[in-house]
Amino acid sequence: MSRPATIAHKQAEVRVDRVREILSWYGSDNPGTLTNVARLLNHGRLAGTGRLVILPVDQGFEHGPARSFAANPAGYDPRYHFELAIVAGCNAYAAPLGFLEAGAAEFAGQVPLILKLNNSDSLSGGADPCPAITGSVDDALRLGCVAIGFTIYPASAARNAMFGQIRELAEEAKRKGLAVVVWSYPRGSGISKEGETAIDVIAYAAQIAAQLGAHLIKVKLPTAHIEQGAAKKVYEKQGIPIATLADRVRHVVQSAFNGRRIVIFSGGEAKDTPSILEEVRAIRDGGGFGSIIGRNSFQRPRDEALEFLGQVMTVYAGKGK
Amino acid sequence: MSRPATIAHKQAEVRVDRVREILSWYGSDNPGTLTNVARLLNHGRLAGTGRLVILPVDQGFEHGPARSFAANPAGYDPRYHFELAIVAGCNAYAAPLGFLEAGAAEFAGQVPLILKLNNSDSLSGGADPCPAITGSVDDALRLGCVAIGFTIYPASAARNAMFGQIRELAEEAKRKGLAVVVWSYPRGSGISKEGETAIDVIAYAAQIAAQLGAHLIKVKLPTAHIEQGAAKKVYEKQGIPIATLADRVRHVVQSAFNGRRIVIFSGGEAKDTPSILEEVRAIRDGGGFGSIIGRNSFQRPRDEALEFLGQVMTVYAGKGK
Amino acid sequence: MSRPATIAHKQAEVRVDRVREILSWYGSDNPGTLTNVARLLNHGRLAGTGRLVILPVDQGFEHGPARSFAANPAGYDPRYHFELAIVAGCNAYAAPLGFLEAGAAEFAGQVPLILKLNNSDSLSGGADPCPAITGSVDDALRLGCVAIGFTIYPASAARNAMFGQIRELAEEAKRKGLAVVVWSYPRGSGISKEGETAIDVIAYAAQIAAQLGAHLIKVKLPTAHIEQGAAKKVYEKQGIPIATLADRVRHVVQSAFNGRRIVIFSGGEAKDTPSILEEVRAIRDGGGFGSIIGRNSFQRPRDEALEFLGQVMTVYAGKGK
Amino acid sequence: MSRPATIAHKQAEVRVDRVREILSWYGSDNPGTLTNVARLLNHGRLAGTGRLVILPVDQGFEHGPARSFAANPAGYDPRYHFELAIVAGCNAYAAPLGFLEAGAAEFAGQVPLILKLNNSDSLSGGADPCPAITGSVDDALRLGCVAIGFTIYPASAARNAMFGQIRELAEEAKRKGLAVVVWSYPRGSGISKEGETAIDVIAYAAQIAAQLGAHLIKVKLPTAHIEQGAAKKVYEKQGIPIATLADRVRHVVQSAFNGRRIVIFSGGEAKDTPSILEEVRAIRDGGGFGSIIGRNSFQRPRDEALEFLGQVMTVYAGKGK
Amino acid sequence: MSRPATIAHKQAEVRVDRVREILSWYGSDNPGTLTNVARLLNHGRLAGTGRLVILPVDQGFEHGPARSFAANPAGYDPRYHFELAIVAGCNAYAAPLGFLEAGAAEFAGQVPLILKLNNSDSLSGGADPCPAITGSVDDALRLGCVAIGFTIYPASAARNAMFGQIRELAEEAKRKGLAVVVWSYPRGSGISKEGETAIDVIAYAAQIAAQLGAHLIKVKLPTAHIEQGAAKKVYEKQGIPIATLADRVRHVVQSAFNGRRIVIFSGGEAKDTPSILEEVRAIRDGGGFGSIIGRNSFQRPRDEALEFLGQVMTVYAGKGK
Repeated sequence: MSRPATIAHKQAEVRVDRVREILSWYGSDNPGTLTNVARLLNHGRLAGTGRLVILPVDQGFEHGPARSFAANPAGYDPRYHFELAIVAGCNAYAAPLGFLEAGAAEFAGQVPLILKLNNSDSLSGGADPCPAITGSVDDALRLGCVAIGFTIYPASAARNAMFGQIRELAEEAKRKGLAVVVWSYPRGSGISKEGETAIDVIAYAAQIAAQLGAHLIKVKLPTAHIEQGAAKKVYEKQGIPIATLADRVRHVVQSAFNGRRIVIFSGGEAKDTPSILEEVRAIRDGGGFGSIIGRNSFQRPRDEALEFLGQVMTVYAGKGK
Repeated sequence: MSRPATIAHKQAEVRVDRVREILSWYGSDNPGTLTNVARLLNHGRLAGTGRLVILPVDQGFEHGPARSFAANPAGYDPRYHFELAIVAGCNAYAAPLGFLEAGAAEFAGQVPLILKLNNSDSLSGGADPCPAITGSVDDALRLGCVAIGFTIYPASAARNAMFGQIRELAEEAKRKGLAVVVWSYPRGSGISKEGETAIDVIAYAAQIAAQLGAHLIKVKLPTAHIEQGAAKKVYEKQGIPIATLADRVRHVVQSAFNGRRIVIFSGGEAKDTPSILEEVRAIRDGGGFGSIIGRNSFQRPRDEALEFLGQVMTVYAGKGK
Repeated sequence: MSRPATIAHKQAEVRVDRVREILSWYGSDNPGTLTNVARLLNHGRLAGTGRLVILPVDQGFEHGPARSFAANPAGYDPRYHFELAIVAGCNAYAAPLGFLEAGAAEFAGQVPLILKLNNSDSLSGGADPCPAITGSVDDALRLGCVAIGFTIYPASAARNAMFGQIRELAEEAKRKGLAVVVWSYPRGSGISKEGETAIDVIAYAAQIAAQLGAHLIKVKLPTAHIEQGAAKKVYEKQGIPIATLADRVRHVVQSAFNGRRIVIFSGGEAKDTPSILEEVRAIRDGGGFGSIIGRNSFQRPRDEALEFLGQVMTVYAGKGK
Repeated sequence: MSRPATIAHKQAEVRVDRVREILSWYGSDNPGTLTNVARLLNHGRLAGTGRLVILPVDQGFEHGPARSFAANPAGYDPRYHFELAIVAGCNAYAAPLGFLEAGAAEFAGQVPLILKLNNSDSLSGGADPCPAITGSVDDALRLGCVAIGFTIYPASAARNAMFGQIRELAEEAKRKGLAVVVWSYPRGSGISKEGETAIDVIAYAAQIAAQLGAHLIKVKLPTAHIEQGAAKKVYEKQGIPIATLADRVRHVVQSAFNGRRIVIFSGGEAKDTPSILEEVRAIRDGGGFGSIIGRNSFQRPRDEALEFLGQVMTVYAGKGK
Repeated sequence: MSRPATIAHKQAEVRVDRVREILSWYGSDNPGTLTNVARLLNHGRLAGTGRLVILPVDQGFEHGPARSFAANPAGYDPRYHFELAIVAGCNAYAAPLGFLEAGAAEFAGQVPLILKLNNSDSLSGGADPCPAITGSVDDALRLGCVAIGFTIYPASAARNAMFGQIRELAEEAKRKGLAVVVWSYPRGSGISKEGETAIDVIAYAAQIAAQLGAHLIKVKLPTAHIEQGAAKKVYEKQGIPIATLADRVRHVVQSAFNGRRIVIFSGGEAKDTPSILEEVRAIRDGGGFGSIIGRNSFQRPRDEALEFLGQVMTVYAGKGK
């Protein structure tokens, strides 16, 4: 604590201010939920900046073990991901029940946890996905989590089942003082493959998650494609800027209650570092709140992953160009 | 309070009389529900007149954010609609969970709230709509709402699911002292597109909502088209007047327990002001109880919206021609 | 609405500001509870001023019918009190289950109701009072109440039973969006008769009610007597001003979270009007939030009661001297 | 126990060490569940080795009585299987409700019991299996069981129902101090018949069971077939060794949290002894935790069965080649 | 973050090590409870040292408002204590329901909270104290607390009621992932006044709290007096060192499971700073885990309180002499 106290104090105040500003958007929530949102915002290297980088590891369930962990076999061990999130200084680590149970005691208190309450696997399925419920709000409490996580697939014919499930789980989570993180991934017979990342569809997906009561919303990065005819007319008539990725991020954030809900973006498939950093800069410049980066983190060797996550956080901390 | 007390008192008495008359139609409801119906009737510029203008904003969920808010981007912010309803003097503001959570604390006590408990989105669907359940009666209590709102689609093959849901939710809402508002929109494989606003179908939709136990019923304005053959015979044989819009409104109101249920009409798509005011006069003259006006309010610039809503209310207050 | 809109608007803003300021003190409450606190503050002649006059009628239960209503036999009829509260412009009417059931439907929406959930009678008892539970939170919902009311008797040997009951009822009421009003009346073997209104004891009673989670606290007007030796030392050492009634009111309000809880004062036994108005001025000047006036209202003839309540409200409205 | 006490003591220490090491993987479980996992590991001939041989007899329910017991009619009697498991020195005996109820009292305390909570029968069914729930966690408690057993069929269109059931049952079992054993058998319209034992699919099935929170996982022995295209690319690119059965066992164990979950393998259909022993050696050499052997045990005459099980255990005890 | 990363990293590791060591003592607790114990240990200026300074403010309830806050009237405002605990860098702030409700949202996430679930007042009582239940475990969840707090009075004739209450509350708290802090204050007809701080009695009180399942135990500093004859014989025969305060602290810590439960000491009545710092050094030297300092903090002017708490923490941080 050799830093001059006054400067440290001032910096801390700025950070508290930003976190309190964000918390002020959630006026219907009890202090328990606000506390857990604050814990997410106050942990790790981006603590207090209002930006987040979250490590999610549900691919073992979603894609199978070899496709997820063979590239970096250390990842077969559930403790690896806790440790990676802690050392990298991520804001939180999100995973299904089994992965969290396998490390939550050993790493208790070292990183905020998000329990994914539903999961799909790749052994069956169809055009209209509907994940299985794989955990409960009480599981999240006993594992010391700050939030529940839930995936919805707008555009799936099974959307009503999913919307009904998250509605019920979110009500319970909020009553018990937890935060609610919704992965909103449009997919299903209602839209085309290209439409899954269309700007109108991603913006719509963010809006739906917000209307369902999510505190944090995770969507994919949108393309400039517009899927729906009725939307296309409006985008053109109103001249909504969607040319650059930053433009599109800005529109998605606007679509989530004019920026009054925390929207973070997923990296998607494994890519090279420069491409991702360029995306991250666009998220930052468009007013996005951060990234949730799974495969691009844990499928790299540990040292590379830490360096990479450090670079991403540097961008969000406002020090990268 | 410089106005002569006696005149103010007399006017207040008249208003209390009309509200008490309306409440007398709901003899099976407990005082809690009556109180909340009264709150709807006693708020805003039309307080005590027995007429209502309600601001509904569920289009973000139903049509997507850009189609709903790009025309007047202030509307991306959930607080905008609370403030619009309050300043305009609407009787109530109706919206899905997320939109109400985002402002219910900040605007507590300033306008009666209606929580829409089910919602459709436009990313998937089919000929036979069935919205997702997106909120609960307990959500309505914790958010301080006076009523739950629910959409049914008579003529959808999924009608039984919806009718069963509202039956259960209405039973719970009434036990807990809330009012029940049903949006009754005929749509689905049972009828033609033109039939969705046919006079026989709209009247039937109002009847169904009333039979399901709704306190307030929202239907679309009916055309003179008659959809069903069996109905057509009766309309012709009995000479039911349906030539003018006021005639048709009168028939719909009659179809909702001879006027002993509150029936209000939706404006539908955005239109020019004179057309709407003409419709509003017809509603008033036909004995309708008011309007629920979404897109025609919040998609205009704020000043225009306030002026427009003022004009509508002036008509209902009996001072417009 | 013939008053100049701008002035009315400005006045309304001031009132909204004061109500919002008060609501800001209750940051742990959901919007439902905030809405109901706002309803109390926004009703009647003192609407929006942050001051309240509440009519309580539980004397029928507490003292028996003749002692309560023979002086003004109209009061035997439960509807009398609803009507009195409404016409006088009180902020709320508080009564036990039976009295509310007997008028809640007829007067639905005309005055905020507070259901007293416990009551003592005078047919038995002893040195250490403990009222019976006579209603439930769900009763309050079905009757359309804005709050539950509950009496605790600090200094009674039975205090743990009462504190435990209100703890449980308050938790339920808050979850369901109701406000909590606690009558805190020190009485019992722990203190002397004189001590029941001692300044140290009344201030302590207000603190206990606040610590138990009350939104509104009702205490008796304190005398300058100091009951407890340990307290006396502190009052003298710190020179706490308690000479005038306004001083003592100020100290009691300070003792309820430094004025961040609504504290109102009861009039106690029937007295002459000038004495009461003098007390009311002291409450106002000491920063008290208002009065709860039972016997001094309903035991007078209706016209006298209305005139009297009007005078009280005039003082609180800041227009009396 | 004629061995010198000091050696026995040292050996016991080694065994305690291995059991404690295994228990350390289950840091989220309460001592009750840990105790029951320990009971499984500390019973029978393989006590303390970290290896298990479990006798399961659910074929009566799954295949019918004659197909199950006619080959060795002694098996019609439920007591036969208790006695077989006890005399053979198995770690546990697993069966449906009826079979356990028929012997749990008589053999109380002589062998750890696992209550299978769901079962399929062969009288109906289809491409996408979904077993019936046939017992409860409370049944397991009253019968003195150490664990519940549950079968999931990944790749079945009904997987969400099964995953949801085990989620709920596992949460209850863990709260009540029981262990959870999941039979994970990929089957259904999502994969081919050959795919049911494909190495990628079996590894995935083990991962899913682990993510669902299983303490013990039972899978079939995998073949070298790779079912899914996306997986095939990874297996080839990363050069995952799957040539020998021991290789494949090693990969499956790795796929269950890098060996930090107990994975045991089923023998499948009745075969000759040398074939099975060769499989058992592969399981041992690949780091598998043991076998669950039903038909190959109880469909042989008792003496043969005991000799056979003895041979299997000798391999696991590290003395067989 | 200009400090050399390696040094900071090493220091952080040391701190994680000590916290993990402490958590290892609570092997029967779920990760949720461990996480909340870790939050207590990882917050504030003593974060990671294994030492704690907690600010408790229940005196308003226990002694009345003037006796508690008149010396430093800023303390009448509940926000004052949140802010004091935050700025001073305390590990936690403990208070009854009302005080926490009055600031938990505004200060969400800025300091770990402990909800005191029972409280005594000074308006009544007797030789054998028994506090009232004033909050619930669910209140603790909705307010975002890390722990419940509860006072027991061993030696009170009402001990069984209190022990039964904490047993039930602790069971619920642990299931829901909260920590349990027990104030163990011997008092009542079972012992003399002097005996309340006798070394044998305080050690016994620590043992009882530990046996009741407390994670953190708060006792008063013991004197060298020995209350019980049977104990006196043992202390003398075994030559238990109790001459110095550090000796006695060491014995109390030993009495709480040989130091495997966190024992902190209360300062008691307001005293001068040098006396307290001397006590704190004794606590530190005797292996005590820290102090819970109420009146000596909040009854001083803010600047003095901050300086004083800073001095106390410096001692615990090992930098004071």
